[in-house]
Amino acid sequence: MPEAVSRPTLEAVAARAGVSRATVSRVVNGGDGVREPLAERVRRAVEELGYVPNQAARSLVTRRHDAVAVVIAEPESRVFADPFFALQLRGISKELTAHDNQLVLLLTEGRPDHARVARYLAGGHVDGALVFSLHLDDPLPGLIRDAGVPTVFGGRPHWSEDTRDARPGRAGEGADRGVVYVDCDNRGGAHTAVRHLVDLGRRRVAHIAGALDQTSAVDRLDGYRDVMADVLGESDPRLVVESDFTPAGGERAMRELLDRCPDIDAVFAANDLTALGALRVLRESGRRVPEDVAVVGFDDMVPVAEQTEPPLTTVRQDIEEMGRLMARLLLRGLSEGRDGEHPAAGAQGAPGRGVILPTSLIRRASA
Amino acid sequence: MPEAVSRPTLEAVAARAGVSRATVSRVVNGGDGVREPLAERVRRAVEELGYVPNQAARSLVTRRHDAVAVVIAEPESRVFADPFFALQLRGISKELTAHDNQLVLLLTEGRPDHARVARYLAGGHVDGALVFSLHLDDPLPGLIRDAGVPTVFGGRPHWSEDTRDARPGRAGEGADRGVVYVDCDNRGGAHTAVRHLVDLGRRRVAHIAGALDQTSAVDRLDGYRDVMADVLGESDPRLVVESDFTPAGGERAMRELLDRCPDIDAVFAANDLTALGALRVLRESGRRVPEDVAVVGFDDMVPVAEQTEPPLTTVRQDIEEMGRLMARLLLRGLSEGRDGEHPAAGAQGAPGRGVILPTSLIRRASA
Repeated sequence: MPEAVSRPTLEAVAARAGVSRATVSRVVNGGDGVREPLAERVRRAVEELGYVPNQAARSLVTRRHDAVAVVIAEPESRVFADPFFALQLRGISKELTAHDNQLVLLLTEGRPDHARVARYLAGGHVDGALVFSLHLDDPLPGLIRDAGVPTVFGGRPHWSEDTRDARPGRAGEGADRGVVYVDCDNRGGAHTAVRHLVDLGRRRVAHIAGALDQTSAVDRLDGYRDVMADVLGESDPRLVVESDFTPAGGERAMRELLDRCPDIDAVFAANDLTALGALRVLRESGRRVPEDVAVVGFDDMVPVAEQTEPPLTTVRQDIEEMGRLMARLLLRGLSEGRDGEHPAAGAQGAPGRGVILPTSLIRRASA
Repeated sequence: MPEAVSRPTLEAVAARAGVSRATVSRVVNGGDGVREPLAERVRRAVEELGYVPNQAARSLVTRRHDAVAVVIAEPESRVFADPFFALQLRGISKELTAHDNQLVLLLTEGRPDHARVARYLAGGHVDGALVFSLHLDDPLPGLIRDAGVPTVFGGRPHWSEDTRDARPGRAGEGADRGVVYVDCDNRGGAHTAVRHLVDLGRRRVAHIAGALDQTSAVDRLDGYRDVMADVLGESDPRLVVESDFTPAGGERAMRELLDRCPDIDAVFAANDLTALGALRVLRESGRRVPEDVAVVGFDDMVPVAEQTEPPLTTVRQDIEEMGRLMARLLLRGLSEGRDGEHPAAGAQGAPGRGVILPTSLIRRASA
């Protein structure tokens, strides 16, 4: 395929300097590892031919990388096993691509690698970051703040309500003037789910909670407790087991619940994957769903929720839209904020700006 | 959590300069968007306190980003739907993490975004790139070469054999002195699979090929043809259908094959996902596997291959190990090559250095 010749090409520079295209490119893009006499020859050829490298010229004008990092605070094995992340990334990818921004997904093996992630963020390789799946004792948010990168969080960060005063020196807390995040109405969604079970006449409603070092899990547990306290005046603590949002965790939790309280007549699971595990154990134990035990999940992860046996009644949140919205908020913040402070986070000066998306109950056969 | 005070902290600099931690970080890391008087105040505070930012000091010494890009030449939706990529990324992630390098996964919506990926690679954000799932007419390899980033390919690039002479001006061809890649023995593996079917007495052996703009698909088709020509003296072209490595594609191809040649007694599918689709259609059509039609896949994608109905006989390649090896080769090249040319690719001066991993037949119930 012959190239257009309206302006000097990389090849022309390479031929004039007597070096490879790779060498020209490295010199032009400020890369390392080219010996000085060689680099000088390239620079002379660039000048003589009037060669203008596209992206360099562009970046000089915009002062932007047109790249956004996505950080998921989970090991890569989890990232690829849980379709929740794929859906959120789908929304993020579509939105970033529509604005010709590069999605830069920073994968890790786990928490010990988060300092390295923060180092990369601080290195000036991206314009901003989208961060999700935060855990309570994870130093990541503090590290990201230190890196000085505009950030939008997926899911309400745990410090967004409690510590709005600046407390420098506390990693992960308070030093920001505001935090921007996108979440769904976790507490309201849980409320709807449990209310639905109660309206079906169920009274021994168990809850398999998510990992309680995540606000989504805590908020869903609160929603469950709201209804139980409302209806029964109290909530039996034996009916709640903490789990970890995975099918295997759901199986373990369901076994424990059946051991503790064999008279359970309903289960609200913190997400669809957990419900999947719970359904398996209920089937093994000879219980019919929904006749003996009604089950409700959370997420409406299609096709998982449609293909369970029986198909799962669940609380729908629009995960892909959450991703899209996170990206949109960040890009908007980046084009607004040019005052030397956190553009995305501080643009409107409001502490704790959260966007909460609504949820809805999707009725299938399980409850 | 109070911080150690053995050296001046970011907080101390922020307090002395009277600005936020984010502002200090942006100035220190060379970020944009901080107004000059503010930046000057920060620099003065840094000097007065003798503050040394960790990663900046480090990068000055090593001239490295300690970051490696991974580019999968497929839309992100495919990346998350096909467990092949998750397995390869697992190997890459483990190896990079063991060497404290950051895995930077560059996701796209599709081919039109590849120029942007190349721009990011050229921008000096990573030390090298691992690139896989190349397609014949994709401009990506040429763009990556122009970006001047040391690269190791996953899967044999199509130009690695045909065009070893330098042909500048041809995007994606020849301009390199060598190309480093890791692949499995696709042709040999296919040979073993079809030989196995023939040894079972099957003579009407069909092949559902992968996307034939990828060398892995072409090589597996060649392996199939080798055996068919060897055994029958010729190969019936109606027995081969091109597909796309997906379950849905496997279903379509199987339907077409049964329409064309209802007397088929065996199928060699180009990968396990394709075999999954083929098995579904064979079941629908009332054919018993393996009694009526024996089926062999490729990959040994666990748990997929174990959970098909019946469990799948397949050609095993160690996908995770391929990823690990790609990362290892790149990191080795980066520490060896400091001569201003493509370090990973040119370090040993050999054109077309490929590492080919062996395959083996895993017998289960389907053949």
